[in-house]
Amino acid sequence: MVTKTDKAAGARSADRLGEQPVPLRAKPLAFDTFRENVVLLPRNSPAVRPERLAGLRKVEIRAGGVSLLAVPMICDDPRVVGRDEAGLPQPAFRRLGIRPGDPVIVTPAQPPRTLDAVRAKIAGERLSDQTYVEIARDLANHRWSDMEIAAFLVACASFTTPEETLGLTKGMIAAGRTLSWDHGAMVVDKHCIGGIPGNRTSLIVTPIVAAHGLIMPKTSSRAITSPAGTADTMEVFAKVDLDETQMRAVVERCGACVVWGGRVNLSPADDVLISVERPLSIDTPEQMVASILSKKVAAGSSHLVLDLPVGPTAKLRDRRAAVRLKKLFEYIADGVGLALEVVITSAVEPIGRGIGPVLEARDVTAVLEGRASAPQDLKEKAIYLAGRVLENDPYLHGGAGERRARELLESGAARAKMAEICEAQGPSPIQAKIGNLTHEVLAERAGRVSAIDCLRIATIARLAGAPTDPGAGIELLHKTGASVTKGEPLYRMYGSEPSDFAFAMEAAGEDAGVRLEP
Amino acid sequence: MVTKTDKAAGARSADRLGEQPVPLRAKPLAFDTFRENVVLLPRNSPAVRPERLAGLRKVEIRAGGVSLLAVPMICDDPRVVGRDEAGLPQPAFRRLGIRPGDPVIVTPAQPPRTLDAVRAKIAGERLSDQTYVEIARDLANHRWSDMEIAAFLVACASFTTPEETLGLTKGMIAAGRTLSWDHGAMVVDKHCIGGIPGNRTSLIVTPIVAAHGLIMPKTSSRAITSPAGTADTMEVFAKVDLDETQMRAVVERCGACVVWGGRVNLSPADDVLISVERPLSIDTPEQMVASILSKKVAAGSSHLVLDLPVGPTAKLRDRRAAVRLKKLFEYIADGVGLALEVVITSAVEPIGRGIGPVLEARDVTAVLEGRASAPQDLKEKAIYLAGRVLENDPYLHGGAGERRARELLESGAARAKMAEICEAQGPSPIQAKIGNLTHEVLAERAGRVSAIDCLRIATIARLAGAPTDPGAGIELLHKTGASVTKGEPLYRMYGSEPSDFAFAMEAAGEDAGVRLEP
Repeated sequence: MVTKTDKAAGARSADRLGEQPVPLRAKPLAFDTFRENVVLLPRNSPAVRPERLAGLRKVEIRAGGVSLLAVPMICDDPRVVGRDEAGLPQPAFRRLGIRPGDPVIVTPAQPPRTLDAVRAKIAGERLSDQTYVEIARDLANHRWSDMEIAAFLVACASFTTPEETLGLTKGMIAAGRTLSWDHGAMVVDKHCIGGIPGNRTSLIVTPIVAAHGLIMPKTSSRAITSPAGTADTMEVFAKVDLDETQMRAVVERCGACVVWGGRVNLSPADDVLISVERPLSIDTPEQMVASILSKKVAAGSSHLVLDLPVGPTAKLRDRRAAVRLKKLFEYIADGVGLALEVVITSAVEPIGRGIGPVLEARDVTAVLEGRASAPQDLKEKAIYLAGRVLENDPYLHGGAGERRARELLESGAARAKMAEICEAQGPSPIQAKIGNLTHEVLAERAGRVSAIDCLRIATIARLAGAPTDPGAGIELLHKTGASVTKGEPLYRMYGSEPSDFAFAMEAAGEDAGVRLEP
Repeated sequence: MVTKTDKAAGARSADRLGEQPVPLRAKPLAFDTFRENVVLLPRNSPAVRPERLAGLRKVEIRAGGVSLLAVPMICDDPRVVGRDEAGLPQPAFRRLGIRPGDPVIVTPAQPPRTLDAVRAKIAGERLSDQTYVEIARDLANHRWSDMEIAAFLVACASFTTPEETLGLTKGMIAAGRTLSWDHGAMVVDKHCIGGIPGNRTSLIVTPIVAAHGLIMPKTSSRAITSPAGTADTMEVFAKVDLDETQMRAVVERCGACVVWGGRVNLSPADDVLISVERPLSIDTPEQMVASILSKKVAAGSSHLVLDLPVGPTAKLRDRRAAVRLKKLFEYIADGVGLALEVVITSAVEPIGRGIGPVLEARDVTAVLEGRASAPQDLKEKAIYLAGRVLENDPYLHGGAGERRARELLESGAARAKMAEICEAQGPSPIQAKIGNLTHEVLAERAGRVSAIDCLRIATIARLAGAPTDPGAGIELLHKTGASVTKGEPLYRMYGSEPSDFAFAMEAAGEDAGVRLEP
């Protein structure tokens, strides 16, 4: 086809197309929108007509070479935004690298090309490695809306091949920064897929491994659905909110660290996916594997020991499911060049006694200090896992790793290393004391504790306030196998916020999560 | 289990639980958020702590017996919201039925119970009729977020039984109001699933049917992805934004109307689903059937003629797909007590000549006025469909419906009825004149027009500005079968916004959508 333009109209449209978009002055808004970027524009903004805005989900805001997407809102109050202004919350100023009054260009955002991949995935198609690279980049740049992410995740949940999971993992690694360490080839790590309350082995494994001399720059997460994440419990001992420079300094000095991964911003695409998976309770093996392994590779790990707990109330209910997941982890790890050892462990109850940051930290301290009162299950699991990690050392094998781990723990070397790490990370900013509200859950009859429900105990501890309130949680007074008399306390709940605590007590009254058999 | 509360803590928590939530004063915000409700709270609000808000997606705002959900944002500017205030945009005031300064209660929103159904659907479960009733009610009350809706829709796209589609349809009907008409048992309607540009038969069928004496209270939609909806084209002739009382008055007087359905608020749950389906391009048979039939039943229709166009660039590409969809429509119609006739029509090109509100209205006028220049395909299709509707009249059958329709059209009775309906609905508020920018797309060689791509033509007409600019669009100068010489214009584009028009010209230059064969 040849197209021919009516002369007058053509000339006019060419003139208009040559126009530059109108720059607006960036005005700081004292707003905290928690999640999505927002931009406030006046109704008569010279940059975008409001009737155009009504049909848009997002606008693009550019300053220098940087751009971000924001949800547009019209504001008719000239005190908040004037005619030539664009009102932006503080985080947007930081991300754009601008100061108040600087010029920004606001234009309707073109929908990202990768949204075609969402539609293709809904239609049951396989996506290429290159597509996953682009998807992860657009996710990391916040170019997808929550509903687009949700549609993608649900479509993936019904059909994703292992090759695609590898593509997604590689894409997520490529979409963020990768740390590298100048300590030779081996950088070890240890991870657990979670679901077992009180399972705070990392805080014991890391100092053992570092005391031996291996490099273990551990980035850990805060709790998402559990009563405490490793970062939450570590925060009872030390500051965990370190940036990369601070983290490097700690590892330089101690050979290890235990910091919160959020500040280091590894695999940012994964964080975006998680922000939608969490409220929707989407928890597929594929997303879990891509999430964990992308974070580990981005953190610069070369050798990983991964703990998959299996039990009646764990994330993995039976060995078959665990073996399937193990194979997927191994396939992806191989594809991204990570030396992985998966260990399948048995989990019939929470580990240790405390559940919640402060209570778990107390257990960790007892193990590191070698106290007689220390929970033996936590100690033995930590020694076992530390042993697996240490056997990456070519001089330790055939059980020597576990023997070495026990020696480093029992000699006090791990305790000293932990003190060194905590000192290097700096003092914690939080007030870490056990909650002043207490409540005991009593056995309603005599019997033997036959099971403790990990999910139920986690729910009650969260209702009591953990981890937002680090001193809230549960202290288990009897574990499986113990005999109790009628009216004897099974566990003690702690909290400090009365209304939350009342909910937790109510929940414990409905189902305490401890099974008794005669 | 027996739970026992530590006395001091128990007493304290009971006191706190007895507390009433703190009422805030509603402060009007001069904000237009387009979609979601937003509430602005100061950081030190006595109603909700900010650390609590950070983890919440929504808060519930109550006033009297009415409540709505809103996305919370923190505002640190006391000029915008003071300590005891909750800043709300105007639509929230209307929906809550409050005035500035009235007390409102703001509390963290409990996630709706129906979100469990989203998770169940993701897991591949079937949902019960009762669950669909609850889902539709929560959708209509805006209790689901966009991402939850997206997850639900994608999960449904991979697996929904006909029984579930019936459950969803019934649920959506129950979640809104149902109009009833005092005109005996028969209320007729006509609908097309869309996808064929220029297919504006409703504006001819309705006056024919009403001229015969059947009741046809037509609610129609504005364009979603097309260059014009029936409501957009009707708006060239008359006001379409009528509320229920005004609509009833028109039907009382004329026996029919053609109004925009959005104001009458039928099947509000459907509107919410569509607001997410549209940007994600989710277009499943199940959602389409539930959407159309819930709207028709809610509008009080008893008899419906439904047009399913099949063609290479139509929504339905082959007869088999059309027959499958026909069966699903019939199954659901039967389940909701609607007498349905499905007609499968052939669609190889747009209907009529004009595409875009004003240009389509011009075709409709030509047909109603019996002009020699009127597009015959539009005229004949309207007569056929009107005939099918008229055969619901027990005195008309075996082709008598179509003869009667032709007679009412050619006698001018339909034209007079249309004038009566337009007068009753009132004058249109829009400026309806054809765009002043024009551009002709020329044949690049001589040949015969073998096909016109409905999708491509719709895209170009939308880029030119239709339907936002009612005078924008396309006028087809040759239809399939016509022979053209090299350089002869194939169609003329109209618009009035130069930058939009330039995009449209560029798109037509890449692929004009008209196929020529030698």
